[in-house]
Amino acid sequence: MSFAHRHLLGIEPLSPQDIVTILDLAETYVDLNRQSAKHADVLAGLTQINMFFENSTRTQASFELAGKRLGADVMNMAMQASSIKKGETLIDTAMTLNAMHPDLLVVRHPHSGAVDLLAQKVNCAVLNAGDGKHEHPTQALLDALTIRRAKGRLHRLNIAICGDISHSRVARSNLILLGKMENRIRLIGPPTLMPSGIGEFGVEVYDDMREGLQDVDVVMMLRLQKERMDGGFIPSEREYYHRYGLDAEKLALAKPDAIVMHPGPMNRGVEIDGTLADDINRSVIQDQVEMGVAVRMAAMELLARNLAAEPRE
Amino acid sequence: MSFAHRHLLGIEPLSPQDIVTILDLAETYVDLNRQSAKHADVLAGLTQINMFFENSTRTQASFELAGKRLGADVMNMAMQASSIKKGETLIDTAMTLNAMHPDLLVVRHPHSGAVDLLAQKVNCAVLNAGDGKHEHPTQALLDALTIRRAKGRLHRLNIAICGDISHSRVARSNLILLGKMENRIRLIGPPTLMPSGIGEFGVEVYDDMREGLQDVDVVMMLRLQKERMDGGFIPSEREYYHRYGLDAEKLALAKPDAIVMHPGPMNRGVEIDGTLADDINRSVIQDQVEMGVAVRMAAMELLARNLAAEPRE
Amino acid sequence: MSFAHRHLLGIEPLSPQDIVTILDLAETYVDLNRQSAKHADVLAGLTQINMFFENSTRTQASFELAGKRLGADVMNMAMQASSIKKGETLIDTAMTLNAMHPDLLVVRHPHSGAVDLLAQKVNCAVLNAGDGKHEHPTQALLDALTIRRAKGRLHRLNIAICGDISHSRVARSNLILLGKMENRIRLIGPPTLMPSGIGEFGVEVYDDMREGLQDVDVVMMLRLQKERMDGGFIPSEREYYHRYGLDAEKLALAKPDAIVMHPGPMNRGVEIDGTLADDINRSVIQDQVEMGVAVRMAAMELLARNLAAEPRE
Repeated sequence: MSFAHRHLLGIEPLSPQDIVTILDLAETYVDLNRQSAKHADVLAGLTQINMFFENSTRTQASFELAGKRLGADVMNMAMQASSIKKGETLIDTAMTLNAMHPDLLVVRHPHSGAVDLLAQKVNCAVLNAGDGKHEHPTQALLDALTIRRAKGRLHRLNIAICGDISHSRVARSNLILLGKMENRIRLIGPPTLMPSGIGEFGVEVYDDMREGLQDVDVVMMLRLQKERMDGGFIPSEREYYHRYGLDAEKLALAKPDAIVMHPGPMNRGVEIDGTLADDINRSVIQDQVEMGVAVRMAAMELLARNLAAEPRE
Repeated sequence: MSFAHRHLLGIEPLSPQDIVTILDLAETYVDLNRQSAKHADVLAGLTQINMFFENSTRTQASFELAGKRLGADVMNMAMQASSIKKGETLIDTAMTLNAMHPDLLVVRHPHSGAVDLLAQKVNCAVLNAGDGKHEHPTQALLDALTIRRAKGRLHRLNIAICGDISHSRVARSNLILLGKMENRIRLIGPPTLMPSGIGEFGVEVYDDMREGLQDVDVVMMLRLQKERMDGGFIPSEREYYHRYGLDAEKLALAKPDAIVMHPGPMNRGVEIDGTLADDINRSVIQDQVEMGVAVRMAAMELLARNLAAEPRE
Repeated sequence: MSFAHRHLLGIEPLSPQDIVTILDLAETYVDLNRQSAKHADVLAGLTQINMFFENSTRTQASFELAGKRLGADVMNMAMQASSIKKGETLIDTAMTLNAMHPDLLVVRHPHSGAVDLLAQKVNCAVLNAGDGKHEHPTQALLDALTIRRAKGRLHRLNIAICGDISHSRVARSNLILLGKMENRIRLIGPPTLMPSGIGEFGVEVYDDMREGLQDVDVVMMLRLQKERMDGGFIPSEREYYHRYGLDAEKLALAKPDAIVMHPGPMNRGVEIDGTLADDINRSVIQDQVEMGVAVRMAAMELLARNLAAEPRE
């Protein structure tokens, strides 16, 4: 099980074999997490710091539980309330934490590229927990594990990613991962929420859900990220739901066993019909959350093994 | 030591024997907490999540220490700052956390009944840390343990609960618990802060402290909860203290060995005279806090044992 | 290795031998923290509570990691958001926490003397993490360890403390510590930011950096604490940097091997030139942070040993 990376900054640098390595190890943690006593000691004595420059209850909780269950000392830093306010720069903050000898640094930041920049300055392993519109690799990995478990494979599937593509690092990381695994990807959404030039990526682009959903195996809905729409076109929620919200009628155009995904938190009645979201025969939304903890445990274990193998200054 | 409950949602569903079971186990934790090294491993490998939708430093701290001393992995969620703001519903938030496989979920919520609702949706054990004006079971249990230790018994005592009864889940849970244990209960407070129809509960109601306190064994003061008084009558603090605040002169009407309790945080000079609150011959207010950690350790251990005995899906 | 103190409230009560005892023990933790698995069990089963009444990301993080690496159960209390708001007094809050049987209480408070007051009310060991303009003992100890490692000794050095002396508990604790160890101390800063009567302490006072820095071994810069300047003279940042900011040209007047220190967070271009701050041949700013964790581990271990030796009520 080789995984020759120092950081997990995105899906981009990973090979298909890297992805399989993470998912296979994550499977063992899915089993562990279903036990009553759910503890492994692979990170015992290591220090994990969660630096969230942007609020995210669920992602931070997932990383925190992942680290604690692996025996790490986990520390959360609420960076909004921090020295940043005292005028300290991102790099100074990172250097300060680095001097405290963390082993794993989990970072979320509102600016694309900020996590990569930070990773160049520190001695520890950095995990990107979402940076701007750039990447959110553990989300793509947990989606991949969910799909693999539901469909029995992670290749040659027809997968539709629907909604607010242009503001979504989730879409971007998924697009890269699912492309590497040789799936056929369709992007469905209003042209105003579709990044320009995306057709060149070998994906099919639709602005009509009824057309785009035909015969797909997986329907991946996205959150409408009003908080990231600075000044641009903001659709009315009612109109959006009518045209791009997933309901039973639109889903009927997909394959009969198509699964429904959403990274959460959901806007019920905007991106997705509430009843459909709760239908455990179609929706794997809760499974995604469950896989999230397992995938993060696997990623942190693999990075920690590499740390242990290399000399520290 | 049998305790056949999946959750601790209130005092209502508990039998007198259940209450004794919790208190007896809590006694062992009172002893443990007075040691230098204060650790048991009965929750080792289990995950405890504290979801506080309402701020409460002392209750959350008490649950957090209880879990950590029992070896659990404890995670605090500041729910005010969370996905709730992104429009997610209480149930979606609960389902999301549930998918991360917690074993114990400690929940405080401003709405009565919210914790019960949530408990129906999750697979783990839920502990109610206070819901609206409904119940606050661990507070009643810690008060019971404090009384039992100070008075040598928990039955056939004359107990006065004084002050803002109508806004108080503490009063409500205590009323139920102390009634189950066959004590004589008096409620003392201004008629505007007394719930209607309370006389039917077999309690005596007074609006005069001097009358109500005569010959009681226990004086349980309540916090004046201005934050819960929406639009209704708000008494002036000075007038309130004059009529309903506990001081040495009013306390002299109770039994000579009567104890003084307060759930905290106290408004000194409003509900209670500061000197009296600090008088260790009469006040057991610090004991209440100490018993709080022990009672929560006991409750979590008993619930965790039941979890271990049942099959998980 | 004897250290006969119950609390660490300031540098004032420490003997030179006490200081050496802490620094010597801290050296072993510098080594431990550079390991991959960095855990000792000397605080296993003990409870550490961090009560920060004033926000401080880096100091709180340093204490939190120190406690976790020593095996303590660590709980952070964000006191701004706490019962304080409900009208509870500092002493009531302290008494409440005390009743939960912490072993180590780490306290930061905006008022000078508040931590001493609190220490008189509790049974546990109290560590002052900064109180008003009074003391910040672990900062002075980490500075001392940094100097001793860089210069090979901690006595008979020429040390300049520069900048906003009057608002700085860091300056005050350092002044006391470095004086006890028989160093020659110069204070450099604008007369408006210099405490009156400071000359009597046996220090030399300068308001000209070029004069004051001549032949010093250590240049200790301070943060310009605008947040503590209530109503008084606030210098313009540009003018301040010109006269009192450290740059290569001013540093050239110090000894060729003089080291540069700053307690952080830095205002680059105000107190110090950014390039100089990052110059690892001169700046030991990152080392200070690293020493911080080690010094706090040592201080907590020494206090915990004394706790274990004394009878608890």
